[in-house]
Amino acid sequence: MASIGAAVDRLRGLLGPAGWLEDDAATAPYRTDWLKRFRATPLGVARPASTAEVAAVVTACADAGIAVTPQGGNTGLVGGGVPTGEGPSIVLGLGRMRRILKIDPVDFTASVEAGVVLAGLREAAAAEGLLFPLSLGAEGSAQIGGLIATNAGGSHVLRYGMMGDLVLGVEAVLPDGRVWDGNRALLKDNAGYQLRRLFCGAEGTLGVVTRATLRLFPAPRRTATALLGLASLGDAVGVGAMLRKQAGEFVGALEFFGEAGLALARKHVAGLADPLEAPAPVYLLAELTASAEGIDLDAVLEAALAAAFEAGLVQDGSVAASGAQRAAFWRLREEMPEGQRLEGPQLKHDVAVPVSRLADFVARADAAVAGVLPAVRVNAFGHLGDGNVHYNLSPPEGLDFAGREAALADAVHETVVALEGTVSAEHGLGQAKVTLADRLRPAVERDLMRRLKTALDPEGIMNPGKVV
Amino acid sequence: MASIGAAVDRLRGLLGPAGWLEDDAATAPYRTDWLKRFRATPLGVARPASTAEVAAVVTACADAGIAVTPQGGNTGLVGGGVPTGEGPSIVLGLGRMRRILKIDPVDFTASVEAGVVLAGLREAAAAEGLLFPLSLGAEGSAQIGGLIATNAGGSHVLRYGMMGDLVLGVEAVLPDGRVWDGNRALLKDNAGYQLRRLFCGAEGTLGVVTRATLRLFPAPRRTATALLGLASLGDAVGVGAMLRKQAGEFVGALEFFGEAGLALARKHVAGLADPLEAPAPVYLLAELTASAEGIDLDAVLEAALAAAFEAGLVQDGSVAASGAQRAAFWRLREEMPEGQRLEGPQLKHDVAVPVSRLADFVARADAAVAGVLPAVRVNAFGHLGDGNVHYNLSPPEGLDFAGREAALADAVHETVVALEGTVSAEHGLGQAKVTLADRLRPAVERDLMRRLKTALDPEGIMNPGKVV
Repeated sequence: MASIGAAVDRLRGLLGPAGWLEDDAATAPYRTDWLKRFRATPLGVARPASTAEVAAVVTACADAGIAVTPQGGNTGLVGGGVPTGEGPSIVLGLGRMRRILKIDPVDFTASVEAGVVLAGLREAAAAEGLLFPLSLGAEGSAQIGGLIATNAGGSHVLRYGMMGDLVLGVEAVLPDGRVWDGNRALLKDNAGYQLRRLFCGAEGTLGVVTRATLRLFPAPRRTATALLGLASLGDAVGVGAMLRKQAGEFVGALEFFGEAGLALARKHVAGLADPLEAPAPVYLLAELTASAEGIDLDAVLEAALAAAFEAGLVQDGSVAASGAQRAAFWRLREEMPEGQRLEGPQLKHDVAVPVSRLADFVARADAAVAGVLPAVRVNAFGHLGDGNVHYNLSPPEGLDFAGREAALADAVHETVVALEGTVSAEHGLGQAKVTLADRLRPAVERDLMRRLKTALDPEGIMNPGKVV
Repeated sequence: MASIGAAVDRLRGLLGPAGWLEDDAATAPYRTDWLKRFRATPLGVARPASTAEVAAVVTACADAGIAVTPQGGNTGLVGGGVPTGEGPSIVLGLGRMRRILKIDPVDFTASVEAGVVLAGLREAAAAEGLLFPLSLGAEGSAQIGGLIATNAGGSHVLRYGMMGDLVLGVEAVLPDGRVWDGNRALLKDNAGYQLRRLFCGAEGTLGVVTRATLRLFPAPRRTATALLGLASLGDAVGVGAMLRKQAGEFVGALEFFGEAGLALARKHVAGLADPLEAPAPVYLLAELTASAEGIDLDAVLEAALAAAFEAGLVQDGSVAASGAQRAAFWRLREEMPEGQRLEGPQLKHDVAVPVSRLADFVARADAAVAGVLPAVRVNAFGHLGDGNVHYNLSPPEGLDFAGREAALADAVHETVVALEGTVSAEHGLGQAKVTLADRLRPAVERDLMRRLKTALDPEGIMNPGKVV
């Protein structure tokens, strides 16, 4: 095995000053995650400019037993892109591989390098009348490679799927430095195991994605958005199911939040609209989009809402009359995390249960966390159509969590498990949840995951301490 | 290791006469594939009635080194459900596990046992106003477990995805007899590797799926179907792209066939409609479906077609005025295989290329096969929106293939590879294509697949000789 020092010399020579960062100031942004919860002391940051350079970097590290943690836009919420403290490591930043190689309007595909930023891809697709449907708060920084590695979600999964569902092909550098070229542009390919899927959601533990070919869709021509006030989360689930049946293929987003979260957001964030005539316990933001020509989408939305009113499921509602009003509705939903963050300490849980159990989950979890810490404040919001709840807690007004953080998290996660849900819906495991997920997994599943990891990365080079 | 005889005794005792078939007559349907190209001599056929029985069967076989070949409806086209000739084996038939456990209209999911027949699931979903979108010729026999194992395709992949895209969770019996319960009903679940995906398209080589939870969609309320006559396949691809941009989310199927295939079908199959006023070199069957309430889908289709006529891409066309006419259009497409089968010997190739290269592929392949066997007859038809061509050959009129079968297949497959396509789009590899696919794979990909197989099935119990 090569010595660590020799390996670093090799990386320095290979990548030059633009591609190998060592000093504190230059590496600082790579050494901690966006939430500043995890800090690392890697030997340096490699910023290769090509697949060949990525392969050379991984080979050099494998030869010396240095761990490689790939990092995209570093917008992850669980510390997946930051090395753990154990053993020598480097960060592998993909940000210089940022070429959009092709937007194909006949194949409805985009071929990109891993470092392409999501917002840039969405703009390039839009310029061709096409849509890359993944959309999330961090899209101005998040990179395609990281989005694949975390199998990112967001607000449009119900209609278009998770990131993994949008990936037709990948090119990846494997843990021993070999390049696997599986970067195909085919909707149908059954000539063997569906290998590309292995790299979606693997958090860089099985190799690093260097290129990908992604699905595109026709761009929406019309959008119709409503904000509804409801008596309960159960009613919101009922309305969601009705809208899906009535408005079918047009349903693009079903997002929910509650009065507690709205109060926090309005307290801390300036300029939030007063959503409806009277406050409601639960709000549902329902958005339809149509890419077909000539659809009166407002009429479709209004007919579906009329049915929901008639069924007694909706108390109050407003249909956006302009783009500005639509943006104001979305801002209410999107400022949920910021309002709570500005309130002070918080505990976040990104969980999902089957949609039909969403209301039951929140009711049970509310009781469970109140049992641990009376008057704890719950801000539950998220993606109703996916059963994905950001079940976030603030301590009782004017107090702190009184050291009950772990007990609160256990209460939430035990409720999730009892309802056949998942403790990580769209954020992944990273460093924050890897132990939790491992503990909750059945032994058979743990064994399957370890076998996969060992089969593809027997030396444990790629992002050790993540996933398994 | 247990002796073979002892293992058979154990299976006989475990399953009883309803669950263990040994005599020739009873096992005959299981010992050969639907096309009668592959024949096997298994020790017997196990027909367990529960997951626990499947686990016991696999355990007994693993203990004795007996290979296990899972078999669903036995409608596969490549021999994947029939054991190879090497070593002792059994067939594991899932047909007794045929319960639909739940259709959930709020979750939009179906939970089923592996032996549920596709048509039965589609009917059960329709009874709730829901759609299970996978549809193919063999749906009256094909079972969910087999459809997952082969990652089945069909005519609606463009809109709804392959079978694997419709699977939210699976329960599987692993090669050592342990049960993995990954049968979740979650759209978002990032708590580890996406294990369920491993079993989609693995042809039973990594374990046998015993239960699954599948995505459902709102049922279509309206359907609009056109049959178009075009001057070339290139024009058909252009029309397909135009329709996708104009009719957006409604595009449900884009199927193509040619005049040669139509002539064969009309020659051999009674009662086929005369499609258009004048024959055309290429036909495109375009179907839109709308599940939203209140959509004038005929108007959407007609506007999109008007644009295609105006662009000079369509020569002739007819919009189905009734369900009967729609069925008549579909029958033309669906009788393509039957017409050619009745003509005599044939060579089938289920391949795919990027949509934008479809016309180029057929032109190049036509030249290549004519170079191997002059006057060979090509019947190219399939799923235009997926770039999936059933590129099937009949020998020159009145002749046979003159021993050029292998050379013809090579010519087709080399053309596919040159255009970055796949030699198995939707049928899988089975016994028919496993050697071909292995030869064409890059060494890195071959190694990845072997590592997966070895990691999950080190003893090679599950369906040996398939995939890798």
